[in-house]
Amino acid sequence: MNRNYDTEILSVGTELLLGHVTNTDARDVSEMLSKIGVNVKYHTVVGDNPQRLRQCVEVAKGRADILITTGGLGPTCDDLTKQILAEAFGLPLVPVQAELDTMYDYIKGGKKLTPNNFTQALLPEGATVFHNLWGTAPGCAFEKDGKIVIMMPGPPKECCPMFEKYAIPYLRKLSDEQIVSHSVHIFGMGESTVDDLFREEMNTMVNPTMAPYAKECDCLLQVTAKARTEAEAEEMIRPVLEHVRARLGDLVYGIDVSCIEEAVLPLLKERGMSFAAAESCTGGDVARRFTDIPGASAVFLGGAVTYTNEAKARLLGIDPALIEEKGAVSYEVAKAMAERVRALTGADIGVGVTGLAGPDGDGVHEVGTVFISMAVEGRTYVKETHMGAWRTRSFVRRMAGNYVYDMMRRYLTGLPVL
Amino acid sequence: MNRNYDTEILSVGTELLLGHVTNTDARDVSEMLSKIGVNVKYHTVVGDNPQRLRQCVEVAKGRADILITTGGLGPTCDDLTKQILAEAFGLPLVPVQAELDTMYDYIKGGKKLTPNNFTQALLPEGATVFHNLWGTAPGCAFEKDGKIVIMMPGPPKECCPMFEKYAIPYLRKLSDEQIVSHSVHIFGMGESTVDDLFREEMNTMVNPTMAPYAKECDCLLQVTAKARTEAEAEEMIRPVLEHVRARLGDLVYGIDVSCIEEAVLPLLKERGMSFAAAESCTGGDVARRFTDIPGASAVFLGGAVTYTNEAKARLLGIDPALIEEKGAVSYEVAKAMAERVRALTGADIGVGVTGLAGPDGDGVHEVGTVFISMAVEGRTYVKETHMGAWRTRSFVRRMAGNYVYDMMRRYLTGLPVL
Repeated sequence: MNRNYDTEILSVGTELLLGHVTNTDARDVSEMLSKIGVNVKYHTVVGDNPQRLRQCVEVAKGRADILITTGGLGPTCDDLTKQILAEAFGLPLVPVQAELDTMYDYIKGGKKLTPNNFTQALLPEGATVFHNLWGTAPGCAFEKDGKIVIMMPGPPKECCPMFEKYAIPYLRKLSDEQIVSHSVHIFGMGESTVDDLFREEMNTMVNPTMAPYAKECDCLLQVTAKARTEAEAEEMIRPVLEHVRARLGDLVYGIDVSCIEEAVLPLLKERGMSFAAAESCTGGDVARRFTDIPGASAVFLGGAVTYTNEAKARLLGIDPALIEEKGAVSYEVAKAMAERVRALTGADIGVGVTGLAGPDGDGVHEVGTVFISMAVEGRTYVKETHMGAWRTRSFVRRMAGNYVYDMMRRYLTGLPVL
Repeated sequence: MNRNYDTEILSVGTELLLGHVTNTDARDVSEMLSKIGVNVKYHTVVGDNPQRLRQCVEVAKGRADILITTGGLGPTCDDLTKQILAEAFGLPLVPVQAELDTMYDYIKGGKKLTPNNFTQALLPEGATVFHNLWGTAPGCAFEKDGKIVIMMPGPPKECCPMFEKYAIPYLRKLSDEQIVSHSVHIFGMGESTVDDLFREEMNTMVNPTMAPYAKECDCLLQVTAKARTEAEAEEMIRPVLEHVRARLGDLVYGIDVSCIEEAVLPLLKERGMSFAAAESCTGGDVARRFTDIPGASAVFLGGAVTYTNEAKARLLGIDPALIEEKGAVSYEVAKAMAERVRALTGADIGVGVTGLAGPDGDGVHEVGTVFISMAVEGRTYVKETHMGAWRTRSFVRRMAGNYVYDMMRRYLTGLPVL
């Protein structure tokens, strides 16, 4: 952007105020905007109430240059975003032929539409129409009174792809400056340490800039540059990324990935290697996380969720005497889990997790004690971790999974595993 | 409440505006408030910027009776909620001895504190202090200028338990009317059908009231009553719940549960029965969901994630010829999965899931085709579902899990399973 456009995201929907749904639209849209250098300054949520929506639009007009709405574009009488926004900017709603045609096509295709569906084809005069390929309600954008208004449907599976496909290019076109941003993902060092390590750079750098952010169980550094062209911005970012990588070394697990398992998938593919998992305290979460990624079946064979001692014996063939002697949460059982799941499935890599996610302990170990194991050709690695008894069950489970994937990453890239 | 207090939740944190974290505090606090009849009218998110925070506080003072802040109570210089709120209501910040004592105890316990930590013991004069048992920054509440202000720390694992422990009773005390609310959870009927079915009641009932809400893969009806005492409100709700149950019959899977697996856990416990799962397209999510619940190990033995044909053969011992002949996504393979995992683990119930979660198809079935199976003593049930090719991967995986748990629920409560 040539100048800093202050941006407000206004989400409309009573279900958000009742706590029945989380406002993931605001997060996802914010993330996309921050990558192109648009500064989101406010999120607001208001219910399906004309008077309060009108008042929120007035507040937003007074403090933001770009107003992005999500929700309230559907066909029911609750959905009033379009009417109120058009009114607030003095624009009439006019029928858009292409959208009407889409409605007729739906009917021809046997879909039942209500008369209200046709109100979806009404849009503010002169607006750029964003055709909805993921649902029925179109979005749109217009400029008026020095403000830019963008309206998006509420369902996340419509809002997010539409925002990426239409709104991001629309906003990029407003500028003759290009913004490029890359995130450096770090596991094994906390946000505050990263912050300390790069304090000087962060305080002195102007373009590119660098900023650390904490995620649930890891953190990231966002590096952003502005330039006349994308290539130029990339060129400015390159040495900064190199500097960061040099300082952090093997703690960096990926650039622009959304999670550590996403960084592991291509490593396995490149090497033509497969893996399988034996899980106790993570209860299937290691497998679930990996199979959330489309295409996981190319390298993930499967695994066993052995939540009880008996299941460890029956599904994995671990000697009950070993479990009896060493305990289910132990170096030895973790080792056996990785080795057995590898042998059973024929995978190149077998991983194992056994530990205490809490809230209850086992009388021997502290909650947060987890053994992570990885069996590969000729060797099995076991790591003992103590996350701290104050950790929540969900933290321990997620963190244990991160350790598993980090161990695989280190092995696959030839780094010291332990 | 005696009257309707309009409430605004103001969340403070730049990380929310950058899309690095989702505002789950606003959702969780809203959900708790809606259960005691407090009307949340606005959510606002603002960054760690004094000027903009001050302006948001002014807006909130103008339109809300109760202002709840989350975030910005920590010891770093970014955290300014307390200072700005105290200033906006003309209250000095004063040291609270009990909180200072806690800081000294931390130091005695060997924890390192920065001088900034001590600013956490400064609170608005006259405020009710909410001691933080889950972290270091205390919360507080005060009444001034006809407004009620409640401040909570930002981390969800501190904010949510503190809000429940301190803020909810604080708000209940403001009223001599009690609000009771129960949610009826429904699987197998969409929100719009539920809406149609109870349209008349919803339009005519005043106290109690009834409202439907959609969740990702199921829906709920919220029934709320106000009365002088809690017992009286419960008494008013009882016949409504009976009426809803009579209309919806076995589609109701639970009252006040957060998900269907949470309804299945006590049913298994009561009957002293165990289960195990064999998962293909859900990739461990059925196991993960169940083991998210503390205490799951009492009834969940474990299972196999057999993401590939080979894993189905190797881990579960399913005949490769059967997979070859019928295909991995088939009635026969689903049946074998449930039966084999039951036999292998010795569980009372074995469940199986095999299907296409997408985005890629297998050239035979449409994406969204899933076979769900359940093997019990003497019988195996198999259900074929077609969720529709337009469904997302995450929807198909979640919905398939719901089918699994619903099948178990029906079996355990003596309902027709298919």
